[in-house]
This record gives sequence, C-alpha cells and structure tokens, in this order.
Amino acid sequence: MDTANHESPVFALHRGGKMEIAATVPLRDRADLSLAYTPGVAEVCTAIAERPELARDYTWKSHTVAVVTDGTAVLGLGNIGPLAALPVMEGKAVLFKQFGGVDAVPICLDCTDTDELVETIARLAPAFGGINLEDISAPRCFEIERRLRERLDIPVFHDDQHGTAIVLLAALRNAAKVTGRTLGELRTVISGAGAAGVAIAKILVEAGIGDVAVVDSRGIVHAGRTDLTEVKRELASFTNTSGLTGSLEDAMKGADVFVGVSAGTVPESVVATMAPNCIIAAMANPNPEIHPDVARKYAAVVATGRSDFPNQVNNVLAFPGVFAGALTAGARQITEEMKLAAADALAEVVADELSPECVIPSPFDPRVAPAVSAAVAAAAKEQGA
Amino acid sequence: MDTANHESPVFALHRGGKMEIAATVPLRDRADLSLAYTPGVAEVCTAIAERPELARDYTWKSHTVAVVTDGTAVLGLGNIGPLAALPVMEGKAVLFKQFGGVDAVPICLDCTDTDELVETIARLAPAFGGINLEDISAPRCFEIERRLRERLDIPVFHDDQHGTAIVLLAALRNAAKVTGRTLGELRTVISGAGAAGVAIAKILVEAGIGDVAVVDSRGIVHAGRTDLTEVKRELASFTNTSGLTGSLEDAMKGADVFVGVSAGTVPESVVATMAPNCIIAAMANPNPEIHPDVARKYAAVVATGRSDFPNQVNNVLAFPGVFAGALTAGARQITEEMKLAAADALAEVVADELSPECVIPSPFDPRVAPAVSAAVAAAAKEQGA
Repeated sequence: MDTANHESPVFALHRGGKMEIAATVPLRDRADLSLAYTPGVAEVCTAIAERPELARDYTWKSHTVAVVTDGTAVLGLGNIGPLAALPVMEGKAVLFKQFGGVDAVPICLDCTDTDELVETIARLAPAFGGINLEDISAPRCFEIERRLRERLDIPVFHDDQHGTAIVLLAALRNAAKVTGRTLGELRTVISGAGAAGVAIAKILVEAGIGDVAVVDSRGIVHAGRTDLTEVKRELASFTNTSGLTGSLEDAMKGADVFVGVSAGTVPESVVATMAPNCIIAAMANPNPEIHPDVARKYAAVVATGRSDFPNQVNNVLAFPGVFAGALTAGARQITEEMKLAAADALAEVVADELSPECVIPSPFDPRVAPAVSAAVAAAAKEQGA
Repeated sequence: MDTANHESPVFALHRGGKMEIAATVPLRDRADLSLAYTPGVAEVCTAIAERPELARDYTWKSHTVAVVTDGTAVLGLGNIGPLAALPVMEGKAVLFKQFGGVDAVPICLDCTDTDELVETIARLAPAFGGINLEDISAPRCFEIERRLRERLDIPVFHDDQHGTAIVLLAALRNAAKVTGRTLGELRTVISGAGAAGVAIAKILVEAGIGDVAVVDSRGIVHAGRTDLTEVKRELASFTNTSGLTGSLEDAMKGADVFVGVSAGTVPESVVATMAPNCIIAAMANPNPEIHPDVARKYAAVVATGRSDFPNQVNNVLAFPGVFAGALTAGARQITEEMKLAAADALAEVVADELSPECVIPSPFDPRVAPAVSAAVAAAAKEQGA
C-alpha cells in the first residue's frame, strides 16, 4: 500500500528529480557543431590518446565525481536497494554543486558483492575525477574503499566514514577550546563501530586525542574479545590504550567526550556519570542517542546531527570542499593529512565566534567550502598526493 | 610528441569540458535542505522502495540516459580507449540535451570483454532511464546490445547501428519519392558490414526495399561463403535474395542505391555502372567512398555524412528524438516499429520541400526532434513497448 502523501512539499519538490545536465558550450549552428562534435572533437580525442593527462584540461573529468552507492545503508533506512537510493544520491549531487562547485553524477549499482562492486566502480572510473562512495554498508565499505584506493589514480572517499569524521573532529577541536582543554586531555567514548565510528576513531587518534574507546553492540572493543571482525581487531590495536572492558555504561564513567554514531539511546543516569564540563555529540538521526535537553544538563557543549539544534554535525560541511580541493590540486588520493587539514580549516572558520552553541559553522556559511577546499588543495600539493 | 595546437578554436572550446550538472531545485536555506535532502528525502526513498515505478516520477531517471562506450571504435579513430573517447561522449550528451531535452551522462568503461561490458552496464543501469551504446566495435556490439535488451527493462540502443539506419532510411524514402520510385523497386548495395551496415540492412529489409546486398572486405555476403561470422551468416539469411556473388564491383552493376558505411573508396568506373537515376549515400567521414562531385555525375540524389554537402546523414537527426519519445512513453525497449516510425517522421519533416538537394532535414531544423519524439512515443504506446 502506498501511504505516501504525494501532495506534500517533499514529493512536490522531488517531482521530475532534482538535477539536469547543462551544456557549457554553444551549439547554435554547423560551425559550433563541427567544433564540439565531429570533425573537430577528433583532434581532442587524438591528443588525449597520446597524452592521457590532457583529459584533465579538455573534458569534464577534472571537475566531476561519481556518487556511487549500492543502496545497502541508505540514511537510517538500511538496505533499500539502488533505485530507492537514487533520491539521496541526487540530493548529494546537488549539494556537491551548490556548495563546492563540483559536478556529481549519481551511480546506483545493482550488485552488493564486494568483488563485483570494486570491479564495476574501477571500470566506470575513467570519465570521473573522483569517486564518492555513499551509503554502502559496513564492513564491506572498508574493503571496497581500500581496494579502490589501491587500484585507481583518482581520489576515492567514503563519505559516511570520512566526511562525518572530519566534521566531528572540527567540532571537537573547537569544543575543547571553548572548554579550555586540549584534545590530548580528552578521553572519548564512541558509541557505534560502523563506517562512521571506525573513521572517527582513526581521525581522533591521528589528531592526538587522549584516549578513545569504541563501543559496539557487545560492549567496549578491546583486544581480549574473541568476537571481533578484522576491522574491529584493527580498531582494538590503536584505541582503548587504557584497556577498558565492559559495557557502554562502564566506558562512559568519567569520560570527557561522548560521540554517538549508533541507533541506540543512552540513559540519563549514564550521562550523569561523565566528567564535569563534558562534550556530547549525539549524532543519530532523527533521534539522538542523548536528547539535547538531557545532554545540556551535564555537558558544556552539545552537538547533534539535526538542523533544529545548535552545532549540527553535517557532512555537507566537508565533502564539497574536500573534493573541490582534491580536484583543484589534481590529487590522486585523499590522504589522512588532507582530511586533517580539512578539519582544521573547518574549525578555523568559526574561530572568532566560538561559543558552546557554536563550535561548528552552519551548513550555509559561505566561508566553509572555500576554506576547506583551499586547505585540502594546499595539503595535497605539499604532500604531492 | 604533442602535435596538437592547443590554441586552436577546437581546443579552446573544449577547455574544461563541455557540460556540467545543474540543480533544478532550490537550496537556499535549512528548509530547502530538509526537503531536498535529509530528513525529507527519506520519505521519497521509502515510497520508491515500496513502489519502484515511482522512481519515474521522483528522480531524474525518467529523463536521463547513460551514453556508454568502451572506446574501441571512436569516430574514425578506432580503439583509442575509454578516456580518449570522453570528448565524443560529452559531445553526444550535449546534443542529447540541445536537440531532445534528454539529460545524458558519459560513461567510459575500462573493459572490452563482452561479458564484462554486459555485466557492468547492467549493474549501473538503475539510475538511468535508457542506455545509449556508443562507439563499441563490431561484432561485440551486436551481442552486447542483444543481451542488455534481454536483461534490462529500459531502452537499450546502439546509436552507431540504429541511429544511422533510421536516418539513412528516411533519406532513402525521400530520395525514392524525388526520383519517382517506391522502396520496393530499389536494389541496394551496402558497402560495409560493421555496426552501421548490419543495422541498415535490417531496417531496409523491414521497410520493404527491393533487395539488399551487403559487401564486406571479402566481397558480397552470401550464404555460400565459409568465412562468415555469426552476424554475417544471419545477414546472408535475409539479404541478397537475388543470390549475387563476387566483389563490390559485381554488386554495383545496375544497382539503384549505394550506401557506403566503410572506409574504402569506389572508383568512378564502378559508379558509372549503376542504374540511371541512382541514389548514392556515401557516408564515410571525412572522406566519402564516392566524392559528391563524382557521385553527382551519375546519381539523381547524393547524400554524405559531411556537413559541407547537401543531405547530411547525421545521427543527431535520430537519437535525441528517439530517446525523448521512448522516455516520454515510459517504453521498456526501442522496437523495430519505433525505429521505423522515427524514420517515417524524419522523412515527413521535409515532405513539402523535397528536392534532390533536400531529402533529409538539416540537423538544426527545430521540427525534427519533436516530430521524431512524437512518432516514437505513439508507436511505443500503440505497441505497449
């Protein structure tokens, strides 16, 4: 049964889709046609066949990314398949354009096997300057990204991992500053060991956070557990240096930071055991793990994934600028250093207006994408990435 | 060595590529974002997951095709690979938009194996309303198209075959009219048994042409030959009903129509043996098999593939309207009836201005795409295609 209200503003806006192709060259007459198409175009093809790097100058590859999904982990909806994922990929594409000036094409793949996804994405890569992986479920997303990064000479970036991680790190940098602490002093608990949780743990450790404990549905991730996947075993090797064991409740006692990227809820009694002046980023959508009204009773800074509360951790603060910078620099990959530079630049945008209610810019702050893009491009060039 | 003149008008026009993505929805503030992206978009995704046919209403799929190549048969350049093919695919995409209002995305695949191409294209199909195959070499193109047509529920159309065939049939219809004959009276020789030659042979037979003889590099295709590929064996089964054998020269004697889709040249002495009032469509580019200055000495009507002579057989007269019509009708395939309807409509556009110099409209005639689109959509609906 169709329970959707097709007259609602959401459906009205989506009618006909959200994007189109536009020509950037004139096609008024035969003379135009003979330049843009045959016979003129043959000269350009021949030049690129001889010197492939010229594709960067003479095609849309230099400013275009594929937004690729298999539809297995779409928003909070889960595995809804590639076709039903298309509205999200179109939305992502229009955000890429609006905020980063990057042209993005939705690619919704009708396969879910890791080998097939890697092969398919590698085969369709030539016409694109980058690959933004999107809404591909864990743990496959980790291997798919790793193999594509090894195989392709263009940036490959799983936004659900690294976009979230960059924005969260920026928020934590500023939250630490607002509360008069350094990242090194913060003991952090991450609830959720999916795509976002794993990437956040990595970037926080790289950024020098004091200690990070990741908690999955079976408790704190530590090397002594026998039920860990390969990804979580790796996680255990560089997180939880204080050797915590037990449940989320155990991890939360005295913690300085809570990062929620799960679907669970944390009881207020557990929140109450966190350290004074703590920082809470409860990013589950639409229902944060800790409601902001509760979080504010105990925390100095509260962030969520929602637009109707202060400090929204929204990936759109990262991915447009990250790809814009990587494409500008002609980078062949997006390195850890480029991600850290993106987080720094994002945090710096609101340096002069910092407050507990403003540790991260608004998604519509026009300074964001240029700042992130410039920082990412500079890091790429410095590194020769 | 790079011998290209990067200051020439062709390279200047191609700088930065020829196309971009544009949003068709506003993204001015949080309210817009909450409709076009999260949380609003989730309602649309859920609706499509429950009723997949809604993707037609609420995504760009309904007006978007993938222009897919493997770069193996690009223009007259041959196998230059997927990256070097991109300028042609971008050109095709802007023609789709300009002439048919169809959004088209260049997909350049880094594989050439038939199975791999079929699998890859089938996997990337969900986000597209149609697949335009382009510049894929024969004989692989025949099997690839056939298997994709069987497998997918969206139109699959190899333009090098059917686009050329539709336009050529339209030209022949009007050329017959101009010279006071019916299609049934015309004995036709097709030089070239590649993608275009095979498709032209099929559509001419379907349209009721008198007899068709196809000539490849080894002579006239007939059932008695032992060197035929599967495709050419099929060709032999429905062409050459008069049982010709021998060379192109043998076939040309007394022929009413010459159709050139090869790279060869035909000596004037051979052209001189054709029937009086003959029709010559010499479409090799940039050098027609028979130069128009020579052809005009013997033929009543002369067509080429070039824009600087009358009667240009240009695929752009077909593919934008064919896909526009198929997409409008929601057709799951492009049938023979739809192609014949396209050719009829295209011929009809210049019915009132027919002359030996005008058997086919100009590519810039604004009546063409609407006429072809309407005819194709009507044929699709009549047939339930």
